[in-house]
Amino acid sequence: MQLLSGLRVVEGSAFVAAPLGGLTLAQLGADVIRFDTIGGGLDYRRWPITEDGVSLYWAGLNKGKRSVAIDLSRPEGRELATALITAPDDDAGVFLSNFPASGWLADDRLRARRPDLVYLNIVGNPDESTAVDYTVNAASGIATATGPVGSLFPVNHALPAWDMATGLNAVIGILAAERRRRITGEGQLVKLSLADVAFTMVANLGFLAQAQVTHANRPPLGNDMYGAFGRDFATRDGRRVMIVAISLNQWHTLVRATGIEEHLPAMERAFDADFTKEEDRYRGRDAIAALLTPWFEARSLDEVRKALDEHGVCWGPYQTFTQLLDDDWRASAENPVFGEVDHPGIGSLLTPASPLRFPTEPPVAPAPAPLLGMHTDEVLQEVLGLSPIEVARMHDDGLVASAVPSS
Amino acid sequence: MQLLSGLRVVEGSAFVAAPLGGLTLAQLGADVIRFDTIGGGLDYRRWPITEDGVSLYWAGLNKGKRSVAIDLSRPEGRELATALITAPDDDAGVFLSNFPASGWLADDRLRARRPDLVYLNIVGNPDESTAVDYTVNAASGIATATGPVGSLFPVNHALPAWDMATGLNAVIGILAAERRRRITGEGQLVKLSLADVAFTMVANLGFLAQAQVTHANRPPLGNDMYGAFGRDFATRDGRRVMIVAISLNQWHTLVRATGIEEHLPAMERAFDADFTKEEDRYRGRDAIAALLTPWFEARSLDEVRKALDEHGVCWGPYQTFTQLLDDDWRASAENPVFGEVDHPGIGSLLTPASPLRFPTEPPVAPAPAPLLGMHTDEVLQEVLGLSPIEVARMHDDGLVASAVPSS
Repeated sequence: MQLLSGLRVVEGSAFVAAPLGGLTLAQLGADVIRFDTIGGGLDYRRWPITEDGVSLYWAGLNKGKRSVAIDLSRPEGRELATALITAPDDDAGVFLSNFPASGWLADDRLRARRPDLVYLNIVGNPDESTAVDYTVNAASGIATATGPVGSLFPVNHALPAWDMATGLNAVIGILAAERRRRITGEGQLVKLSLADVAFTMVANLGFLAQAQVTHANRPPLGNDMYGAFGRDFATRDGRRVMIVAISLNQWHTLVRATGIEEHLPAMERAFDADFTKEEDRYRGRDAIAALLTPWFEARSLDEVRKALDEHGVCWGPYQTFTQLLDDDWRASAENPVFGEVDHPGIGSLLTPASPLRFPTEPPVAPAPAPLLGMHTDEVLQEVLGLSPIEVARMHDDGLVASAVPSS
Repeated sequence: MQLLSGLRVVEGSAFVAAPLGGLTLAQLGADVIRFDTIGGGLDYRRWPITEDGVSLYWAGLNKGKRSVAIDLSRPEGRELATALITAPDDDAGVFLSNFPASGWLADDRLRARRPDLVYLNIVGNPDESTAVDYTVNAASGIATATGPVGSLFPVNHALPAWDMATGLNAVIGILAAERRRRITGEGQLVKLSLADVAFTMVANLGFLAQAQVTHANRPPLGNDMYGAFGRDFATRDGRRVMIVAISLNQWHTLVRATGIEEHLPAMERAFDADFTKEEDRYRGRDAIAALLTPWFEARSLDEVRKALDEHGVCWGPYQTFTQLLDDDWRASAENPVFGEVDHPGIGSLLTPASPLRFPTEPPVAPAPAPLLGMHTDEVLQEVLGLSPIEVARMHDDGLVASAVPSS
């Protein structure tokens, strides 16, 4: 099932958010054409890289797209890119970009060429000043609620969560605006800032309301869950597991699996608590953890797994990335959203398709990343109707480039 | 601009991912009808709560929706909810849920009533076993790459990032499937698991490829950025700031603003590095930080701000949630995506609209959260065409309920 078959999106981008948006659309079957300047944009060599210097980061975020390389420093190159963005096909005319929407990429310049353009422009701050995932996260409050209990220092998470949310929101903006265009015929300029994504989200998730109502901040809780019972435990063989009991059913299964039931009434009296209540499990979490710790310390991860799974406990092991690859079927070719795919210039990688699944349809095969400029000729001929001779002249002139091994 | 005006979505949900999906659709103008059992579902009293016990969490994730309360333990109640889900209006027939898609919510049962239903069902694992944000995050590898350098323990982040990404992906699935229905007339069952969202994302972001290619894991880096220069620094007045120099331009502005230029050539010779290269800034980050630390220690946050902003450095202060509310215009009513809004049962809260902005249109006002059951009567009359007398009988029968102050 390729839900977005037929939709064409042109992407002018770098780094995470905008490329992730294009990737998400490509994984749903859209024809996503990313243009870059010859030799690659700012993100073309970002780490992690292979021994040959090929960026695994770039490959990861540009899978399934068509790549066009154009000399954007020349007016003729910018005209070519403009023609791609504003090509008249009914299912085209969608532009996703985090480049400044000024000069040749100003909305009015592009809209003069295609009035019904859907233009999704990603910026840092709402006033268009610079911000990146790291600076927005620092300001969001999240880093001050992450880390060990009593921590005096903010802790950054390794996941570029705001880039991720911005890329996904960009896809939502594009699909919503394209829906409206389909109904009314009208295009739209849509602006999306990293800062707005982050701060509206911490508001949606209750962090800001809590601060506003209580005039206090949620402190860092180590690996504990807020508002219910959730904590990590060490196993006998040096692994760690995350245990969660949010719902009453989850609590009962945990109690049964670990056999702590007989000690609970005394514990509840001592702490004036009723552990069948979510909030009392949160307030009494240290007491509950004290009961559970010996159970985990006495068992290997395999023994823990067997006992908890038997009772349907909500839990999971902590894993490194290599453990995730080696030990977890959910990140393996056994899971139909993954496949081993050969990426030109890199080799075989476990490669994901869209996480959106269609149980009644065959799964969509994961796509590899293109080489930079791999589709220059086919796109210029197919989308702009140029002849092979015209494209060959542009090559001779150095205006466009095709794929070269990217090392 | 209400891009999704006219689209109606019925939501049967609890916790974060599915409600966030419905919220995102409502903030774009869709008519989102959330049904709950009378008295509220599993997430109705989740922390944080007000002094009166009203959940700020529930309010945050259900803003702008219509709330219907039905006794779902009775067959007549489940029939009412089924009628809402499968109502025949052209712009309706979209169901977003993280309830088990079995029994009365099985796809074939619902599809028999409305063959072109768009049904987005969120599950934990791809095999539909239980998983939550915390257990998926533990397994994703991210927690082992978060925290101080040399940390032996995984560190959870406070942001429910995978719930967030799953909710946003659910919206993408709905909009893509509704687009296809608009073109082909066909509906679709779409499954989305938290685990697939998390593990495809760590693959898209290059973490898995790095592990697969190098057989090594990215270690926790404290608050440093991976692959370029980014680190936090303490100011003279006890604040902390995050400084980022990914691009060459960002590096040059940082060097100029802090006056470290004269010391760089010696430093580059000592470390055999060229700091105009991203990767050399990463490899030499401790040396660069050593040069910068005294500059930050000698200045207050205000002095740092003035100097860095003057040069256009990419940076941001760390803030708690209360500092974000008190000191940052981006999370205030000065920013058009926020407004102070009165929420029934809670009071006034700084409340966000969608982060998607339309520069040529007036901003959309943020919406408050409903009381549970606030729209029961209007929805049953408007969507199902019931008469006021029929709805009154259902109230007498205890089958439905209207809003009561939720304390």
